[in-house]
Amino acid sequence: MFHVSTVQQFDLEKTTHLIKHAEYLRTAKRADILHRLSGSLVATLFYEPSTRTRLSFEAAVYRLGGQVISAENARENSSSKKGESLADVFRIVGAYVDAIVIRHHSAEELEEAIAYAPVPVVNAGAGSGEHPTQALLDVYTIWREIGRLENLSVAVLGDLKYGRTVHSLLRMLAMMPNISLKLYYPQSLSLPPDIAAEMERAGVRVEQAESVEQALCGADVVYQTRIQAERFESVDEACAASDYAIQAKHLSILPNHARILHPLPRVGEIDPAIDPDARAAYFRQAENGLYLRMALIDQLLKGELS
Amino acid sequence: MFHVSTVQQFDLEKTTHLIKHAEYLRTAKRADILHRLSGSLVATLFYEPSTRTRLSFEAAVYRLGGQVISAENARENSSSKKGESLADVFRIVGAYVDAIVIRHHSAEELEEAIAYAPVPVVNAGAGSGEHPTQALLDVYTIWREIGRLENLSVAVLGDLKYGRTVHSLLRMLAMMPNISLKLYYPQSLSLPPDIAAEMERAGVRVEQAESVEQALCGADVVYQTRIQAERFESVDEACAASDYAIQAKHLSILPNHARILHPLPRVGEIDPAIDPDARAAYFRQAENGLYLRMALIDQLLKGELS
Amino acid sequence: MFHVSTVQQFDLEKTTHLIKHAEYLRTAKRADILHRLSGSLVATLFYEPSTRTRLSFEAAVYRLGGQVISAENARENSSSKKGESLADVFRIVGAYVDAIVIRHHSAEELEEAIAYAPVPVVNAGAGSGEHPTQALLDVYTIWREIGRLENLSVAVLGDLKYGRTVHSLLRMLAMMPNISLKLYYPQSLSLPPDIAAEMERAGVRVEQAESVEQALCGADVVYQTRIQAERFESVDEACAASDYAIQAKHLSILPNHARILHPLPRVGEIDPAIDPDARAAYFRQAENGLYLRMALIDQLLKGELS
Repeated sequence: MFHVSTVQQFDLEKTTHLIKHAEYLRTAKRADILHRLSGSLVATLFYEPSTRTRLSFEAAVYRLGGQVISAENARENSSSKKGESLADVFRIVGAYVDAIVIRHHSAEELEEAIAYAPVPVVNAGAGSGEHPTQALLDVYTIWREIGRLENLSVAVLGDLKYGRTVHSLLRMLAMMPNISLKLYYPQSLSLPPDIAAEMERAGVRVEQAESVEQALCGADVVYQTRIQAERFESVDEACAASDYAIQAKHLSILPNHARILHPLPRVGEIDPAIDPDARAAYFRQAENGLYLRMALIDQLLKGELS
Repeated sequence: MFHVSTVQQFDLEKTTHLIKHAEYLRTAKRADILHRLSGSLVATLFYEPSTRTRLSFEAAVYRLGGQVISAENARENSSSKKGESLADVFRIVGAYVDAIVIRHHSAEELEEAIAYAPVPVVNAGAGSGEHPTQALLDVYTIWREIGRLENLSVAVLGDLKYGRTVHSLLRMLAMMPNISLKLYYPQSLSLPPDIAAEMERAGVRVEQAESVEQALCGADVVYQTRIQAERFESVDEACAASDYAIQAKHLSILPNHARILHPLPRVGEIDPAIDPDARAAYFRQAENGLYLRMALIDQLLKGELS
Repeated sequence: MFHVSTVQQFDLEKTTHLIKHAEYLRTAKRADILHRLSGSLVATLFYEPSTRTRLSFEAAVYRLGGQVISAENARENSSSKKGESLADVFRIVGAYVDAIVIRHHSAEELEEAIAYAPVPVVNAGAGSGEHPTQALLDVYTIWREIGRLENLSVAVLGDLKYGRTVHSLLRMLAMMPNISLKLYYPQSLSLPPDIAAEMERAGVRVEQAESVEQALCGADVVYQTRIQAERFESVDEACAASDYAIQAKHLSILPNHARILHPLPRVGEIDPAIDPDARAAYFRQAENGLYLRMALIDQLLKGELS
């Protein structure tokens, strides 16, 4: 039984295979793929509500002809409140459906329970742990916008400490050849030591930038993270959060071929004045999530992932 | 891109076209229309929960063979809580689906954001603003029950100040030829000046009745609004709320061909003793909502609305 | 109009017919039954959230090719909050769909309103009242695991007072020939007098056991109930709750052909160490719920129940 639980299951070969399948599903006539998953049923169990991620998974299933049963707010509305274990939930819901997509508040609980699932499970975000399909769609976006997954210079701006999506992305990039990172972040929000060590082991070149401008210089990809005010240690620091965000004034120094990514939702980190710029790729990135998840669910239900 | 945002988009011709399509879908064999929207996907995003309206839209899509992804309680469960703009929600969800049905707490926010939606949006109720599909189904009900949309005498009872549905209905009626209104309402709940002015400009005859009986006299249609206790300025007034509602005792003075409408839910404004009377049209009115919404979604997705 | 509201509608003949249909749907090729309910639409209205029961009903409808509209948390999110009667909800939602599955907090309200529903309604659990499909799946499990519905010795352990599911099950067993019960429960959680009287009238032999061991001795079926700490009258009693639960050490005295059932969710009443034992039937029981509900919905929508 193959479960999608971490980006570390996706090396360059598998990722490329997945991306190409996403590209195929995207360009296929809609009617031609509308019955690929006919008769398949997928459960989406969201213990932490996340409308965007849930809707994109559900849309992915429907576009392929499958059906969905869903718990929008499983933590509040389910027997978990009565103390039922997640392992029991997997056993039971797994008897109803062909695959389970889950967002859970505890990475540990999810990891422990997943072994009891009688059907494939997809981790759609687990507490402070991984969110592998977000990283996969980030990488898909880089491939689509830049044209390659190697020899990349990536600027990462903002909160490198708490951002679940940026950790998963960096872990994926570490599997690609010849990657350079330029990081620019508030002092209190630096990369966790284990991720930093992982980068080093993988031979990723990591450089600390001293300004947004310096980080952007020569970048192929700018990955802007969400900056949550409550993460900062002081009010002064929080007020300076926008110092770690790309602004319209920086566009002039950003290479023409570069692309700006953001996992969204954004709350002020990216000025809407940037939106019309062709290098602003974040809405295309969100759309890519649909096709990437279609490809993943399709491969998973057809037993092509392992 | 055509969005359904206000009743003012529906003149007599368009409304008649829509109604006739609703009538066709209602009388068609179910199997004959079951694949009209095959492969189409609609999102229902409810920032204010409304089971009835949401379920009728979703049933409408399913009856035509489409599929639905849904956020039952989007305000609580979505990234809007994190501060994401509605424009961003439209951009992203609009990349997953073919149309968006939305109920939102702010008419202003909705109006501003709708321009960013890459797919058609249907306003399913916007704060104190409009609820156009309710007005359309009200008008459909009048057409179906009375046989025409002109030369109508309409009694409107109850709260004329806050009732979102009654405002949308009056705006629609103002587009029809030869309409007379008889209004009966508590002093503090009179028609807002802008609606009153609109009626006058459109040549609608507006008369203030002095009793329920007087309002009903000669009426073709009785539109009873919901009367919410918290709208009244004093306890005495609230206690007198039922004085502005049709009661079983009034049935004897109501013309035989007349019909009683209510947007529902009702909470005491209509005595269940009236239900069996053939002139009580409010449950048929709710059912009409299904067919009207089927017609609207069908025309919208086929690009027949503009 | 046939509504599924109580187990008393299911005598041995009807139950056997339903079980055999469940067995047919379970063993049929998935593609062969995928269009049985094409074009049918079912509403699931949950006034008390219950992810498991809702998802199994929805999965049942989808497996047969039907579609579902759903209110996951109808009490909070619907017009019931505004004071609308359940009868009005049935009238209106009944105009949108072909059947309604409802869980409600009040057995009385449900019973009163059901007469106004224009389409078949299935009671999916009603307050402290019945939960007929749970009892039906329990009985289906006994039939499947033991091979018969008569001449059964059933041990019932735990809370016999508040357990809605155990009451419904006992009422069903009372319709079968030659049933013996051995009950073991905390003194304050004994069988309600009306259920006890019903057992007596039906000729069910009821024996009070003095230990778990004694209850299990010679049992064909062990029905373990959920024991909620808050049901106990004292802390001492609550601490002793596990004295009324089957434990791994009891397996040696349980007959080889016997089966352990539990309505789930379990919260400590059944040690996971028991799970691998072939006699532990509770997860298969949960799976049976899917097929039983498929059979019920199928017969209901085809007008085969009365």
